Amino acid sequence: MTKTPIESAILTIFGITGDLAARKLLPSLYYLFQAELLPKNFAIVGVTRSGTTVDKLIEKIRTSVESDGVSADQAILDHMAKVIRIVEMDLTNAEDYTRLKKELDAVEDSHGVCMNRLFYLAIPAQTFAHIVGLLAHAELNSGCQHGKAESRLLIEKPFGYDLASAQELIEQLNTAFSEEQIYRIDHYLAKETTQNILTFRFANPLFKAAWDNSLVSHIMITAAEKIGIEGRVAFYEQTGALRDLIQSHLFQLMALVTMEEPKELGSDAIHREKLRLLEAVEPIHADKVANIAVRGQYEGYREEVADPHSMTETYAAVRLAIDNDRWRGVPVLLRTGKGLAEKATEITLVFCEKPGAETNSLTFRIQPNEGIVVSLQAKKPGFTDEMQEVQMDFLYRNSFVGIQPDAYQRVLVDALKGDKTLFATSEEVLASWRIVEPILHAWSISKELPTYEIGSWGPSEATNLAHNAHIQWPMDKITKNFMRSM
Amino acid sequence: MTKTPIESAILTIFGITGDLAARKLLPSLYYLFQAELLPKNFAIVGVTRSGTTVDKLIEKIRTSVESDGVSADQAILDHMAKVIRIVEMDLTNAEDYTRLKKELDAVEDSHGVCMNRLFYLAIPAQTFAHIVGLLAHAELNSGCQHGKAESRLLIEKPFGYDLASAQELIEQLNTAFSEEQIYRIDHYLAKETTQNILTFRFANPLFKAAWDNSLVSHIMITAAEKIGIEGRVAFYEQTGALRDLIQSHLFQLMALVTMEEPKELGSDAIHREKLRLLEAVEPIHADKVANIAVRGQYEGYREEVADPHSMTETYAAVRLAIDNDRWRGVPVLLRTGKGLAEKATEITLVFCEKPGAETNSLTFRIQPNEGIVVSLQAKKPGFTDEMQEVQMDFLYRNSFVGIQPDAYQRVLVDALKGDKTLFATSEEVLASWRIVEPILHAWSISKELPTYEIGSWGPSEATNLAHNAHIQWPMDKITKNFMRSM
Repeated sequence: MTKTPIESAILTIFGITGDLAARKLLPSLYYLFQAELLPKNFAIVGVTRSGTTVDKLIEKIRTSVESDGVSADQAILDHMAKVIRIVEMDLTNAEDYTRLKKELDAVEDSHGVCMNRLFYLAIPAQTFAHIVGLLAHAELNSGCQHGKAESRLLIEKPFGYDLASAQELIEQLNTAFSEEQIYRIDHYLAKETTQNILTFRFANPLFKAAWDNSLVSHIMITAAEKIGIEGRVAFYEQTGALRDLIQSHLFQLMALVTMEEPKELGSDAIHREKLRLLEAVEPIHADKVANIAVRGQYEGYREEVADPHSMTETYAAVRLAIDNDRWRGVPVLLRTGKGLAEKATEITLVFCEKPGAETNSLTFRIQPNEGIVVSLQAKKPGFTDEMQEVQMDFLYRNSFVGIQPDAYQRVLVDALKGDKTLFATSEEVLASWRIVEPILHAWSISKELPTYEIGSWGPSEATNLAHNAHIQWPMDKITKNFMRSM
Repeated sequence: MTKTPIESAILTIFGITGDLAARKLLPSLYYLFQAELLPKNFAIVGVTRSGTTVDKLIEKIRTSVESDGVSADQAILDHMAKVIRIVEMDLTNAEDYTRLKKELDAVEDSHGVCMNRLFYLAIPAQTFAHIVGLLAHAELNSGCQHGKAESRLLIEKPFGYDLASAQELIEQLNTAFSEEQIYRIDHYLAKETTQNILTFRFANPLFKAAWDNSLVSHIMITAAEKIGIEGRVAFYEQTGALRDLIQSHLFQLMALVTMEEPKELGSDAIHREKLRLLEAVEPIHADKVANIAVRGQYEGYREEVADPHSMTETYAAVRLAIDNDRWRGVPVLLRTGKGLAEKATEITLVFCEKPGAETNSLTFRIQPNEGIVVSLQAKKPGFTDEMQEVQMDFLYRNSFVGIQPDAYQRVLVDALKGDKTLFATSEEVLASWRIVEPILHAWSISKELPTYEIGSWGPSEATNLAHNAHIQWPMDKITKNFMRSM
């Protein structure tokens, strides 16, 4: 991972009045200013269709920071008010992009230097292709001096809707920006525990020796939410659980936890190994989808989205196999759902010497209570030789005192630095779509969609999916034990 | 480990007025009565030279129990007063043993059953040979019916003074009691964490894979005490640190942590593997002792024992090698000392992939704060790729609520049951003496004896012993981290 100093930059945020900017980007910038992690020459340009003022943005920042339980530092807010400028644009109008370019040129003139230009598209993905075309048309796809200052595009998922649309989007973006210039944000990858997966795996020989099919019996990755879709009807109705979490975040987590050791810990080498892993996932045969994938919809969802025929899944579970020497024979179960019993994202490896004797597990807890838990067998004290499962754990909170940077702070700093380690490549995106394509197709024509109670662990079909591979979802147990550490 | 029910028994304690009986044996019996772990037909016979009364013993028990912070249960004390009887004896007089036999016969008559007869020699080892001869002469080396009730001999270390004297003692005892009848008590082996070593090693595949010279860089076993010899001048002057702890307890710990997996977890199979391990320790060449063994004496020791020429070591450290496929090339460092900086007994395995990259360790903490700690590398939070050592731990106290049985309770129950798993065999004792014999010889003729400050970590020569194998004693670090968990 590179350690380049952060160069002068202008961060242009499309959608400055939107939810993401208010909840994540602007507060993250506040904290980065506070930590003095931003370059000396730095400016923020907020693009808005509906109009806003710098003062309004500053008040949003103040509110957000104070909701973290911190009193906002007026000096930082004053400084931010000076470096933010608002540009009102009709995003479909090419002339407005020329005007945007003039604004950026003017900022650079005032600083007296060429600055990297970052365009953060915090707006719906449908608009991406059009906007990047117009950015390129206005020559905003390169910095003010070729080869010195760079232009970078930051985009949020979804990166397509299926394999074909992802391919199309990638091609469209590539007519304007090269792959090197595109930063696909996966904030899961920027979480501390996620970043720690590679460190843990490759810097700790004690655990490395057990990391293959000789000892790992199965791998389970869970992203469970208690909340429902929270009013995001339009987005969710065209996405669903499989696309929203499994195809994107959970495949990335799977790749980190199962990929081979890269030759060095640089961005390119890591992406190469992640891609190799994703490409090693055994293709799913069309007529086997029902055996390895389960979907579900929580009760009341159709009323919530006001569509009595909605076939959108709020729960999805899949069982994959990895066809390489390390993992052949080790089922990988992934599941996600809304309206479940707990909020928890975690990766669990279960170890055993002989089938049926699963006595150890290792869990990376991504959220909440970030940390690592190993369950092991210990002799019960006293006049007995019985064993009992006990836990060893390492919690970030206990070992590292102080406020930990939010994932979006890390995303912004890495994009400013030009470090692409924590961003998904187009090849990874395509490989991920390729894996789920047969499931998407089967579900698009099937009429089967089990429902489940809100507050449960999803449809009983998911339990069977695990049972058929002689596996039990671990959540009840894991959750209880994490509670102990709280 | 067998689960035989405890049969009727008479426990005869030689040295009932001694320190061990007052501090350990009688209080342990109190707690075993309380826990209803003793057989219905059970009697205690206290042998004394100097005379005492049952009432005096009961008061000692009450005092000891109350010093544990528990109020003594009068009903249990009353019951104990009924089952204890005192026999005054001249231990050199054969007739007194006949009188003892009559007492035991009388107890059995009153219970109307044959009872196993256990003889616990809680007296100095020099007297053992003589006493067992007289026990045998009085036919106390067998139960009242051959093959049904058994006679067992329980002895405390030291089991000899060197190889020759140990051999002699074993032969002397064997003229009166067979090997099967002799229970050599090592209370270290009866501690929960020690008992857990085999469970941990063989029931947890996650760690099993790393348990050999491909990943273990070295093994360190420490038994450190803050206290000095506490007035036990005569005992210590003829023992010293090497005999007192390394040759006995620490070699047993080494065997448990490095032995091959026994075919089953029964006493015989475990002892077979322990012996094989002890016999695989590379013999120490006479002219290499200075390279692999260090002794020391704390400052002020000679004044304490009133001998300005005392050559008794209060600190000893040795570096051994195990010549088998699993451990070839892995140094095993053992050290013990009195008057050191901390009280701690622990076993640490250090893991590394490449020499110089020791990034993991696993520590069995025998006392205090019994538990297991794994140190590992985690990514520091924030905008860095730096790593930091963090710890995962499992503490008995946190995972198992309630008072845990003292090691002597376990010793007594196992001896009553006839389970020899936690007792040292004569072959193990001889193999242990064989290892240290060249060191004992070299030290008996050398005039070199470094001193060290009380409250330090021993003589600097011990640091060099580790350094020469590119090892650093871990104590400072480990102790600090255990403190965190307290």
